[in-house]
Amino acid sequence: MIKYYFHNQPFELEQGGILEDFKIAYHTYGTLNADGDNVVWVCHALTANSDVADWWPNTVAPGRFLDPDKWFVVCANFIGSPYGTTAPLSENPATGKPYYQNFPKFTIRDIVAAHKLLAEHLGIGRINVLIGCSVGGFQAIEWAVEEPNRFGRLVLLATDAVATPWTIAIDETQRMAILADPTWGEPTANAAAEGLAAARAIALLSYRGPSGYNLTQRDPQSDTILPSHRACTYQRYQGEKLVRRYNAYSYVAILDAFDTHDVGRGRGGMQAALNRLTMPTLVVGLTTDIVFPAEEMRNLASKISTAHYAEIQSEFGHDGFLVESDQLNALLVPFLNE
Amino acid sequence: MIKYYFHNQPFELEQGGILEDFKIAYHTYGTLNADGDNVVWVCHALTANSDVADWWPNTVAPGRFLDPDKWFVVCANFIGSPYGTTAPLSENPATGKPYYQNFPKFTIRDIVAAHKLLAEHLGIGRINVLIGCSVGGFQAIEWAVEEPNRFGRLVLLATDAVATPWTIAIDETQRMAILADPTWGEPTANAAAEGLAAARAIALLSYRGPSGYNLTQRDPQSDTILPSHRACTYQRYQGEKLVRRYNAYSYVAILDAFDTHDVGRGRGGMQAALNRLTMPTLVVGLTTDIVFPAEEMRNLASKISTAHYAEIQSEFGHDGFLVESDQLNALLVPFLNE
Repeated sequence: MIKYYFHNQPFELEQGGILEDFKIAYHTYGTLNADGDNVVWVCHALTANSDVADWWPNTVAPGRFLDPDKWFVVCANFIGSPYGTTAPLSENPATGKPYYQNFPKFTIRDIVAAHKLLAEHLGIGRINVLIGCSVGGFQAIEWAVEEPNRFGRLVLLATDAVATPWTIAIDETQRMAILADPTWGEPTANAAAEGLAAARAIALLSYRGPSGYNLTQRDPQSDTILPSHRACTYQRYQGEKLVRRYNAYSYVAILDAFDTHDVGRGRGGMQAALNRLTMPTLVVGLTTDIVFPAEEMRNLASKISTAHYAEIQSEFGHDGFLVESDQLNALLVPFLNE
Repeated sequence: MIKYYFHNQPFELEQGGILEDFKIAYHTYGTLNADGDNVVWVCHALTANSDVADWWPNTVAPGRFLDPDKWFVVCANFIGSPYGTTAPLSENPATGKPYYQNFPKFTIRDIVAAHKLLAEHLGIGRINVLIGCSVGGFQAIEWAVEEPNRFGRLVLLATDAVATPWTIAIDETQRMAILADPTWGEPTANAAAEGLAAARAIALLSYRGPSGYNLTQRDPQSDTILPSHRACTYQRYQGEKLVRRYNAYSYVAILDAFDTHDVGRGRGGMQAALNRLTMPTLVVGLTTDIVFPAEEMRNLASKISTAHYAEIQSEFGHDGFLVESDQLNALLVPFLNE
């Protein structure tokens, strides 16, 4: 069940903007034990929400790595996301209308600052395991660097310590598609819907990669020219599907925030920041991920003195982290219970 | 110097459309020898033109694989491309105005049929070496399957025997970006310019891949949040640059044609078609290509009984075929001269 934390004070953002107040939507699973030492905090990816059991199949269940009989699992919807937390479609107290494209600029560090306030509200001090997947990992690694002693273990799954030129280029291309839609800027929730659909299709290319498409979207052998292709239908369908559940203002605001990700900023660079990490850390790559290629994940692990690297075999590219739950559980159940 | 072949008869297209007449722009380098046995035919990629010496650095020069002192090199701009050949901005004889989005649908096989007419016009029978790179390879492999006895050798560089679900998905995503631009359909050469820029940015992601961007577009280390990123500027610049030299109507017509590529159509499937190839064939992959991954190029080579596979080491992804001219020459000079 979705719950809300209301923060009724001004919240200053890293780039100088201010939210007069905000709310965070979150889910919990299981029960915080008396010693408060069974907390697993999950940071979700771009278009997901706080309901881990909904978007991460076969993880929140007895015997799985997010076993609610053992762990008190928390997942918070982050600032900017349209799943209950303060975001571009929220009312701007200064105008009484939604922010739309005037939502103040925020960063991964602002998202983490809000998570900390939620943790305080929940009475959570120490967090046994912090898990971040994809851009959820941006939040996780940033938080771990900020408060290394708060966490018992860290899991970084298909993510990075800085937004790379490659991920920034993917984001910029999506912004180009959205801003090419002339309804961008209109004060409605469905502004730039066509641009958003194209952006989602771009993102899907990166999430699935060559092996993902070639595995699942192959046309039947045909002796005539096909009027359409499965891969085309799939791209359009995925675009339209996101438009029904998301909005372009949140999407762009979040991409902007992702591009600011750099654990090294103001800390003497990435390696100096990563040197703060002293908790056992598991870095997990996926064999066919083209967003955060396995080689870069191995490289990230090599920069964290307490990290081990593990690799998931998958034909589903980056989306493998959502698909390969058996391999994930085989890696994470022992790591969380060590 | 650009030359033109004018075909002044109706040309029937595979999907039933008819061009009342057409012209093909082409370049040649070197001289056809008396025996007519020194022809190298190059098939160019998506947004290139017939001037190989312009778009393929360090190839058309003494000692290089397209040595004009030795070879008679021919490259033809294909139907639909805006570099001199009949294309969507050409005048539709039925209306006296450009075709724009009403250009008749064409396929790779139509492009090859037009190439054949040009060869006849040039008095070229046997072609010693046929080379196709990227989607130029779609034309090359199709032509080689149609007339296997015409060619002495075949070079397939970063390409495939069929358009895969992955390349079709990339094309569809670009079409989505272009069609989301409401100026698509307007009867002007610069219709859907913003959409085309976004499409080009999508294509660039696929051409460069993670290693290409991370190698060349890294931001300087900064202790403050950067107002912009090199990768963003690069994407927008590349988009704008293509808009200045191309048009959305050609672009979409060509993507549509690419998606029809299937050497197996009407020939009992891909393997049966590839079994027709009996000439020495060199299949070349690039280590970081995400459009035509090395693994798939190796797979293609394994399906052609007379093929050898070679791999170019590159950090530039698919674009490596334009960049790694030393490795290319080291592979192709001996193969062409065997």
